[in-house]
Amino acid sequence: MKKSLIALAVLAAAGAASAQSSVTLFGIVDATVAYGRASGTGSANKWQLTNSGYNSSRLGFRGVEDLGGGMSASFWLEAGLSNDNGTGVATNLNNQATGAAGGSTGLVFNRRSTVSLAGGWGELRLGRDYTPQFWNLTVFDPFGTNGVGTTQTLNSIITGVTAVRASNTIGYFLPGNLGGFYGQAQYYLGENVRNGAATEKDGTGAGVRLGFANGPFNVALALSRTDYATGKVKQNNLGGQWDFGIAKAMAHYSFDSNGNVDGKGWLIGGLFPVGAGEIRAAYSRYKTDVAGSPRTNKIALGYVHNLSKRTAVYTTWARVKNQGGAAQALNGSSFGTGVVNQNSSGLDLGIRHSF
Amino acid sequence: MKKSLIALAVLAAAGAASAQSSVTLFGIVDATVAYGRASGTGSANKWQLTNSGYNSSRLGFRGVEDLGGGMSASFWLEAGLSNDNGTGVATNLNNQATGAAGGSTGLVFNRRSTVSLAGGWGELRLGRDYTPQFWNLTVFDPFGTNGVGTTQTLNSIITGVTAVRASNTIGYFLPGNLGGFYGQAQYYLGENVRNGAATEKDGTGAGVRLGFANGPFNVALALSRTDYATGKVKQNNLGGQWDFGIAKAMAHYSFDSNGNVDGKGWLIGGLFPVGAGEIRAAYSRYKTDVAGSPRTNKIALGYVHNLSKRTAVYTTWARVKNQGGAAQALNGSSFGTGVVNQNSSGLDLGIRHSF
Amino acid sequence: MKKSLIALAVLAAAGAASAQSSVTLFGIVDATVAYGRASGTGSANKWQLTNSGYNSSRLGFRGVEDLGGGMSASFWLEAGLSNDNGTGVATNLNNQATGAAGGSTGLVFNRRSTVSLAGGWGELRLGRDYTPQFWNLTVFDPFGTNGVGTTQTLNSIITGVTAVRASNTIGYFLPGNLGGFYGQAQYYLGENVRNGAATEKDGTGAGVRLGFANGPFNVALALSRTDYATGKVKQNNLGGQWDFGIAKAMAHYSFDSNGNVDGKGWLIGGLFPVGAGEIRAAYSRYKTDVAGSPRTNKIALGYVHNLSKRTAVYTTWARVKNQGGAAQALNGSSFGTGVVNQNSSGLDLGIRHSF
Repeated sequence: MKKSLIALAVLAAAGAASAQSSVTLFGIVDATVAYGRASGTGSANKWQLTNSGYNSSRLGFRGVEDLGGGMSASFWLEAGLSNDNGTGVATNLNNQATGAAGGSTGLVFNRRSTVSLAGGWGELRLGRDYTPQFWNLTVFDPFGTNGVGTTQTLNSIITGVTAVRASNTIGYFLPGNLGGFYGQAQYYLGENVRNGAATEKDGTGAGVRLGFANGPFNVALALSRTDYATGKVKQNNLGGQWDFGIAKAMAHYSFDSNGNVDGKGWLIGGLFPVGAGEIRAAYSRYKTDVAGSPRTNKIALGYVHNLSKRTAVYTTWARVKNQGGAAQALNGSSFGTGVVNQNSSGLDLGIRHSF
Repeated sequence: MKKSLIALAVLAAAGAASAQSSVTLFGIVDATVAYGRASGTGSANKWQLTNSGYNSSRLGFRGVEDLGGGMSASFWLEAGLSNDNGTGVATNLNNQATGAAGGSTGLVFNRRSTVSLAGGWGELRLGRDYTPQFWNLTVFDPFGTNGVGTTQTLNSIITGVTAVRASNTIGYFLPGNLGGFYGQAQYYLGENVRNGAATEKDGTGAGVRLGFANGPFNVALALSRTDYATGKVKQNNLGGQWDFGIAKAMAHYSFDSNGNVDGKGWLIGGLFPVGAGEIRAAYSRYKTDVAGSPRTNKIALGYVHNLSKRTAVYTTWARVKNQGGAAQALNGSSFGTGVVNQNSSGLDLGIRHSF
Repeated sequence: MKKSLIALAVLAAAGAASAQSSVTLFGIVDATVAYGRASGTGSANKWQLTNSGYNSSRLGFRGVEDLGGGMSASFWLEAGLSNDNGTGVATNLNNQATGAAGGSTGLVFNRRSTVSLAGGWGELRLGRDYTPQFWNLTVFDPFGTNGVGTTQTLNSIITGVTAVRASNTIGYFLPGNLGGFYGQAQYYLGENVRNGAATEKDGTGAGVRLGFANGPFNVALALSRTDYATGKVKQNNLGGQWDFGIAKAMAHYSFDSNGNVDGKGWLIGGLFPVGAGEIRAAYSRYKTDVAGSPRTNKIALGYVHNLSKRTAVYTTWARVKNQGGAAQALNGSSFGTGVVNQNSSGLDLGIRHSF
């Protein structure tokens, strides 16, 4: 239900000769009443009106220009929204911890800010964008990396700055006509001066993703590596889904490392259409090899009721079980100081409206 | 003169089946040459090019979707603008002093960022919004809480963080067909963890406003309370107006408290149409019960000349008299250190353009 | 290729009586792969994906309202974009070093945020805007003050806060029908309190620019002065160009001062159309009278290939020679500590897409 702000009729009325210019304004406002609860001594619960429980809130501008001869140019500027308080969402300037910018303040095109040239050979894309290593974790998660039910992989302690997006990227995408094969490669720059220091390549990295989709079937593999003097971050994953019609089953498996810490995780879940709605369910787990082998297991169950294509009400319940010294608390709840291996649960209840 | 960015003709031209999608882009750019002057030893005057002397500068995006059956969904994203220097205007994340965010920096949807579901039963609205306790102070003020002439209640020292807006709100509005009765109730969350600390409810509060409008007559009452460990803030007010045709008379009365400090204020004023323009006048006063009973009295006089429905030039003059130890200075002027009970005056001269 | 978001057809379809309301959404996304290299002991090179190598990246909203009788009102809100990471670009609140705001954070209308009234007598413009003293440096520079090839004057150490833009401006522009003469005057406020302190006028200043354009010929002079207790900043320049058809030759000369430091600079360059592209070349120099007479000389060569009116690919190479103690390094490269009088070179390679 995206809309072209400037369309043919408008330009025709204005007597413009060129009819191919268009900008699309789009967005999502998703508000969530969220409750989090933690067990154990000294724990604290929390109530919030927060955002993005079903889909990430955003405001964006994008457009495509036909250059002729099968070529096109395009741009995409998309800002995250914390619509519970009106602020934007942080970006990161250099793919390093030092580069955090814009948190809790103004509108920032943190979600994507790119310019592209495309043709029969594929697409060249420059700017801030999702990393290849992110996609399997959201595409093959019934909860799409939003809200309390999302996969444990992205909640893990070894996730790096480039787990979801990177700045200063140079990306290439395969064209869409390869018989079901799809893929992308991306290189990103940490932009430190090259002075021979151990940190000179910090935040520089690359990722690649290759997949195959055919009818009800979709599977993809992603590999990535980002350099840091304190230890490379490698985020790798494999995901797939099968659409049975009455339900869509999906799973992903992650094998990551951050310096000398290794982590492994997996999710299995499904989407079950029910009239105008959909039941969502997933079980996910993540485990690292630090002392004690801390691991978290989450079970999540949700329901989305579509009032229209653009508007839905939804609820998600999730419960996480901490083991081996893990202490993950859901939806802003918290454990007492030093308390580990306790459970936490969370509930989301919200409205998602897109435009 | 608001405009639907995407309208029927556009979607029709694009062959879209659905014609109900629309986004409205709207805004105001109001620039003010402002002068402030203070009397007494060590005082300093000030010249500024500032903003929002007549109406608050803003940039917004909003839209409504018809869901059928009398139901609708809508969103509203509205950012304040400091158009004298290009920055946005601060919001507050948690309705507490600790939550200030976005000041003098980027565009923030500080004015309103909400998603709503509405039907015959009224409207449910989630997000950052005006508080019920604000409305009487602006609706029943000839200067509409903008510029040098505005009511003393909002300038008082006991005004809290939620005097105008709150984040994390859950609001309900009565439907519009109640024979002139209107009203709203709002609950907002401070979002602290519930750990038994005295501050756990800081920033959490509620407000309610009920009114009746019929022909030339409009009156409303608002009551509110926001929790803080340092003392609850209660902001209450009653306002009304009568439109005599040749003039509109209005008044409001405030009875507030912040911890153990009580404050009371009132305004009486009017709007007098003169050709394409309007004369504005008000007298307002606020007094608190701290030692000495500091009180401020302001007289304000202004004129707005409409060049069109969208564009106006305006001027406002105001003078404040400080008593009982008060030291309020207008338009950025300042008194010498420790100087109280002096007068200050200010002048606004500006252009307001809306789109 | 600018687009009116709201146009006649849209309003007609909505049955609106007024057809003159329009808002234009416009912007540029320009991404640049940039390399910088410095010579000498301890130097460091740098690779970046940066922005605005050809034209400054931006997102803007503007509109004009016809008020009748030859009068019009208009607004212009234009934000800089760092599209390599999604952030906005800093503004300055008060034309002083203390007023820096919005850097590396949210979207800010730092490039321009103004409201205007215009008529046969010219235009009155209020808000944040370019200063008159800036224009000659960009109009008469083949590289338009963007990217590695731009004039040395704006890279000089004596450039002040108001070299390009000022906040809190009151500007006047001559009307367009003066037989080729054009001009503007601008006054801007530092907005300090007037308390007799030496710094009370810091950031307050004025500039004027007068020019004459006729056929292939265009020449303009600008003079300015900004007050600071630490020493006034004067930025003055003269520029001109001649369009020979097969090439456009241009030059500018700058004579500036910052306190008791004087600086002088000049540029000579040209634009050479080649099919769908353009070769750009310039030699520029800046010299100050501090001890040793530090001076920089830059030679720059570039090529822009237009894929359409809106989209271009480009490359620029430049080399700067430092003398007299100067140490300017290009494109993020750096010299060793204390190293002076070395050379630096830089290369830009990018895509510019406008909408």
